[in-house]
Amino acid sequence: MWNSRKVGILGGGQLGRMLVESCNRLNIQANVLDAENSPAKQISFHDGHVTGSFKEREAVRQLAKSCDVMTAEIEHVDTYALEEVASDVQVEPSWQAIRTIQNKFNQKEHLRKYGIPMADHRELVKNTPEELAEIGEQLGYPMMLKSKTMAYDGRGNFRVNSKADIPEALEALKDRPLYAEKWAYFKTELAVMVIKTKDEVLSYPTVETVQEDSICKLVYAPARNVSDKINQEAQALARKAVAAFEGKGAFGVEMFLLEDNNLMLCEIASRIHNSGHYTIEGCALSQFDSHIRAILDLPIPAKSLEIRQPSVMLNIIGGSAPDTHLKAAEAALSIPNAAIHLYSKGAAKPGRKMGHITVTAATMHEAETIIQPLIDVVDKIRAQRADIKTKAQPSGPSKPAPQVAVVMGSDSDLKTLVPGLKLLENFGIEPAVEITSAHRTPDYMAKYAAEAASRGIKVIIAAAGGAAHLPGMAAAHTALPVIGVPVKGSSLDGVDSLYSIVQMPRGVPVATVGINNSINAALLAARILGSFDPAIQRKVEAYAEDARAENMEKKGTKMRELGWEKYFEQM
Amino acid sequence: MWNSRKVGILGGGQLGRMLVESCNRLNIQANVLDAENSPAKQISFHDGHVTGSFKEREAVRQLAKSCDVMTAEIEHVDTYALEEVASDVQVEPSWQAIRTIQNKFNQKEHLRKYGIPMADHRELVKNTPEELAEIGEQLGYPMMLKSKTMAYDGRGNFRVNSKADIPEALEALKDRPLYAEKWAYFKTELAVMVIKTKDEVLSYPTVETVQEDSICKLVYAPARNVSDKINQEAQALARKAVAAFEGKGAFGVEMFLLEDNNLMLCEIASRIHNSGHYTIEGCALSQFDSHIRAILDLPIPAKSLEIRQPSVMLNIIGGSAPDTHLKAAEAALSIPNAAIHLYSKGAAKPGRKMGHITVTAATMHEAETIIQPLIDVVDKIRAQRADIKTKAQPSGPSKPAPQVAVVMGSDSDLKTLVPGLKLLENFGIEPAVEITSAHRTPDYMAKYAAEAASRGIKVIIAAAGGAAHLPGMAAAHTALPVIGVPVKGSSLDGVDSLYSIVQMPRGVPVATVGINNSINAALLAARILGSFDPAIQRKVEAYAEDARAENMEKKGTKMRELGWEKYFEQM
Repeated sequence: MWNSRKVGILGGGQLGRMLVESCNRLNIQANVLDAENSPAKQISFHDGHVTGSFKEREAVRQLAKSCDVMTAEIEHVDTYALEEVASDVQVEPSWQAIRTIQNKFNQKEHLRKYGIPMADHRELVKNTPEELAEIGEQLGYPMMLKSKTMAYDGRGNFRVNSKADIPEALEALKDRPLYAEKWAYFKTELAVMVIKTKDEVLSYPTVETVQEDSICKLVYAPARNVSDKINQEAQALARKAVAAFEGKGAFGVEMFLLEDNNLMLCEIASRIHNSGHYTIEGCALSQFDSHIRAILDLPIPAKSLEIRQPSVMLNIIGGSAPDTHLKAAEAALSIPNAAIHLYSKGAAKPGRKMGHITVTAATMHEAETIIQPLIDVVDKIRAQRADIKTKAQPSGPSKPAPQVAVVMGSDSDLKTLVPGLKLLENFGIEPAVEITSAHRTPDYMAKYAAEAASRGIKVIIAAAGGAAHLPGMAAAHTALPVIGVPVKGSSLDGVDSLYSIVQMPRGVPVATVGINNSINAALLAARILGSFDPAIQRKVEAYAEDARAENMEKKGTKMRELGWEKYFEQM
Repeated sequence: MWNSRKVGILGGGQLGRMLVESCNRLNIQANVLDAENSPAKQISFHDGHVTGSFKEREAVRQLAKSCDVMTAEIEHVDTYALEEVASDVQVEPSWQAIRTIQNKFNQKEHLRKYGIPMADHRELVKNTPEELAEIGEQLGYPMMLKSKTMAYDGRGNFRVNSKADIPEALEALKDRPLYAEKWAYFKTELAVMVIKTKDEVLSYPTVETVQEDSICKLVYAPARNVSDKINQEAQALARKAVAAFEGKGAFGVEMFLLEDNNLMLCEIASRIHNSGHYTIEGCALSQFDSHIRAILDLPIPAKSLEIRQPSVMLNIIGGSAPDTHLKAAEAALSIPNAAIHLYSKGAAKPGRKMGHITVTAATMHEAETIIQPLIDVVDKIRAQRADIKTKAQPSGPSKPAPQVAVVMGSDSDLKTLVPGLKLLENFGIEPAVEITSAHRTPDYMAKYAAEAASRGIKVIIAAAGGAAHLPGMAAAHTALPVIGVPVKGSSLDGVDSLYSIVQMPRGVPVATVGINNSINAALLAARILGSFDPAIQRKVEAYAEDARAENMEKKGTKMRELGWEKYFEQM
C-alpha cells in the first residue's frame, strides 16, 4: 500500500518533529535517529526509532536496516555513512547532493557551472593573513570570511570590514576550511522552498525573510513589495539551482534581492527549512507534507503549494532564562489567528530556536498588524539577554499598497477632486494621487495605467475637462475599472467633458459620474472595493444612513418645526 | 507555567488523537486512557498514559491521579467514576453535563426548560406495542423510535413508518430505555461547534452536514445557501443550548433547518465533533485547539474561530476490505488543496470512520468542484459494500451564486442589453437577469436592490430609457456599485436617458456608460470583478488584445494590401 514504506529520518529536532507530524497524518511510520526523547520521537510511539547521533556511522547503518527511504532534517550528516547504505536503502536527497551542499564552497562551485548568479568568492588555501589580504584587494571591503563547513545560523561567518580585521577574523575561524565572499548590498532577503520529485521541480511562492543576530526572525509570505515578475524570477532561479542536484525532497533556497532588482543566490539547504514553516498554515500542503510525498513518490498537486492567505511567521528564540520562550508563547495565545508551534526541546539556551508562531489573515497588512504586539514581546525578551547588545530589527506593519489611484490631466482639476479625495480619506482609503495628461504626457500616462494593476491598484479615478481624453485613454491601457469625472470647463458647461468621457467606443468602458461630481466618483470606488471588503461596505452603508438621517431627521424635523418660510429665511 | 498542567483524556480514538495533536504543538502532556496503541497514544510517547477502558472505574481513578484536568472524547463514559474523581481533579465539561447529555431523553428534557426548540417527543415507560401505538397517534407517522442511551451514528434509532412497524421497532431496540420523536421535515442539517470557556460561550460559524447511512458524510463550511441571518440565529441557538450545561470545552450542536427557515435543535454532543473537523484547516484555531485552551483557561481570541476559507470535509469510511479506505486516501493525494487525516485505526470494518479529507479553496464552488472526483471514489467504494443496498447521496458542485445582476425597467430594454449579456456569457460570468421598474414596481425594485449584496451580488447593471430612474434608484437602495446603461428612446436621441442616469446627486453614484452601450457595461462589470479575480482580469486583457489584433493585424493589413478604395468597396 502507498503508505506502508517506512521513512528513516536523520535528526529528531524541530524539523524532524514537523516531518513526523506529516507522517502521522498519513499513517506513515517515521523512524528517527537521534537521542532518546528528542522532539520528533516524543510524538511518535513505536519501536522503530534508533538511539544515537546522525554523525555515528553505526547508528546510520542501524537506521538504514529499519527503513525503506532515508532522509535528513539537517545537512551536517555523515555523507560517507549515507554513501555506504545507499546500496541498501533509498537516500533522499542523494548523498552526493548533501555532500556538495554541506560544504558551502563546493556548493557554490557546483552552482557556478549551472550559471546561477552568486556573490563573487575566493577559496583560502593557506589561511594566512597575506592570502586573505590579497583576496581582500580583489573582493573589496567589507567582505565575508566563511567556513566552508558546519556553518549555520551565523556560526562560521565573520565580517571583515577592513584589512585591520584580518588577524581577528582568522583567529575566530581558525582550523576551519575557509573561503571569502564579496559583500552583497541587498535591499531584501528572499527565500523559496523547492520540492524536487521524481519527475518535476516544483516551488512554493517567494517569501521575504528578516534575519536578526544572524538567524531567521520573521518570514513574510508572500514577500512584501515584490512584484509578481520578481516573484516568478526568484522561483525560477530557485528551481534552476535545485535542479542542479540529484535526489528528491524539499530544498530551501535563500536569495538576495539587490538594489537593481536583480537576484543573487545566497545559499541552498538540502532539506526542509525555517523559511518554509509558514506553509503549515499558509498553504494546503506544508513543506513537510511535500517532502514526505516527494521522497515516497506520492502525488503533489501544484495548486496545493499556492499561498492560501498572507502569512507572517515569527520565530520564538530562547531568552535569558530557560523558560523565557514560554512567555512569548503565552503572549501568542492572545494573538488572533496565531498558530503556535512549540518544539518541546526542554530548557532553552539564549538564541536557540524553541518554537514559532504563524499569523494568517485576509491581507498582509492585517497579518502584520495582528502580529506586531507579539513582535514587541519577543523584542523585549531579546533586550533582556546578556549575550546581545544590538538593538532589535525595527518592525511594524508596512503601509498597505493603495487600492485606488486618482489621476488628473492638470492640477487645475485638483480642486474638483478635493471633495472626493477627502471622502476617500474619511473612509480610510488612502489613494495614490498623480498628475498625468493624455495629451501632454501620453507615454507616462500609458505606462502609469498599464502598471497600475501590478502595483495593487483596484480602481482608477480619472478627472478631465474639455476634450477629456484621460479617463478613456487610461481605460485603453488597463484592465482595471476606470471611473471618469467630467470637469466643467470655461465653455459648453461641462457637456463637452461629459460626452468625451461617457461616449467611449464599444470595448473600452469608462464608469462616468456626473459633471464635477468627485464625491460620487469616490463613493463608486468605495462601493467597488466594498463589494469585496465587508469593512468598506459597512462604511458605504453608514454613509447612506447618515445622509438619510440628515435629510429626514435633522432637516425634515426642522422644516416641520419652523415651517417652510422661517426655514427659507435661515437658509 | 501555563502549559505545565497535564490533561487526561478518556478515549484514544480519532478525536483523542486530534486533541493530542493540539496538545503536542503547545507541549502540553496528554495522558490518554484507552487500550495500548490506540490512535491517540501512537502520537504521544511518555509514561503517563493509562491502559484500560474509559468505562472501567479503576482505570478512570488511575487517570485522575496522573492529570490536572480530565476530559473525554466521547460522552458514553462512566459518569459515576467522573463524579467520584471530581473532588480530586478538574473534570471538563462537568460530569453532570456529560451525564445529562449522554441520555438523549434527559438531554432534551433539560433543554426544554431553557426554551430550546426541538421536535416533540414522548418517553416510553413500558416499551409495549400499545404504549408506542398511543404515542404514534399523538406524534403521527413516520416517527423516530430512539434509545435514550448509547445511541450514535444511527445506532439505537429506528424509523417507524406506520403502526405496522411497531413490533419490529420494539424488537430492534429491545431491552433499551426508549423515547419516540416526531418526524422532522427539514431542508438542511446544520451544525455549530460551541466553545464554553470560564467566562464566555463562543461559537464557530454554522456549517451544513450531509448524513449517509446515518453517519456524517460531508460537511460544508460555511453552510451553503444559508443567509447570514440564519447563520447568526443558528449560532445563537447553539450557544444558548450549550449555556444550559456546566463545564468548559467544545460542544457539537446539530440542528435542522426547517422548510419555513425555522431552526430546531437535533442533539448536542459534550465533546469535539465530526462536524468540526474542518476547523483544522478552515480556521486559525481548530476545535481541538479551542477545547484544550478552554479546559485549561487559556485565551481564545474570537477572531480565530472565523472561517479562513470555504471548506468541504469528507469522511473516509471503512469499505468492503480492511484496507479499502486507504484507496480513498490514495485518491485524495491527487486532489488539489486536500488535507488528509488518517486515524491509524488499523484494519477497517465496513462503515467505520477511518479518516477524513478537508479541501479548502477561495470559493465554496471551487472547493466543491475540486473534491467531487474524491466523492465519486468514496461513492464507488461504498457501492461495493455488501452491508448496504441504498444509493449514495447525490452530490455535485452547487451552482455558484451570480455575482452580476442585470436589471431592466422594461422588456423593451432587453434588446439593448443582449450584446452585453452575451459578452458576460463569453467571459463565463452568469448573471441574474430581472425586470424591475422604478416606476411600475418600486417596492420590488427597492427590495431587489437592497437584498442583492446578501445574495452574493457584487455589481448591478441597470438599463433604462427616457426619465431613466432605475439605475439611480437601485443605487439608492444598495451599497453595491451600480452601472447605468442609458437606452435611446423615441425622442431626444438618448440624451434624456444619459442625463437622468449620470447626473445623480452627490452621495449616490451611478457608473454610467455610453448610450445603448451594454457591451461597455458588461466589460466594466468584468473589470470590477477582475480587480479581485485574476482569472477574470486575464479574460479582460485577452479581450483587449483580441481587439488590438483585429484592428491592427486583420483590418490594418487588409487596408494596406487592398488600398482604401478597394477596402471601402468591400465594406
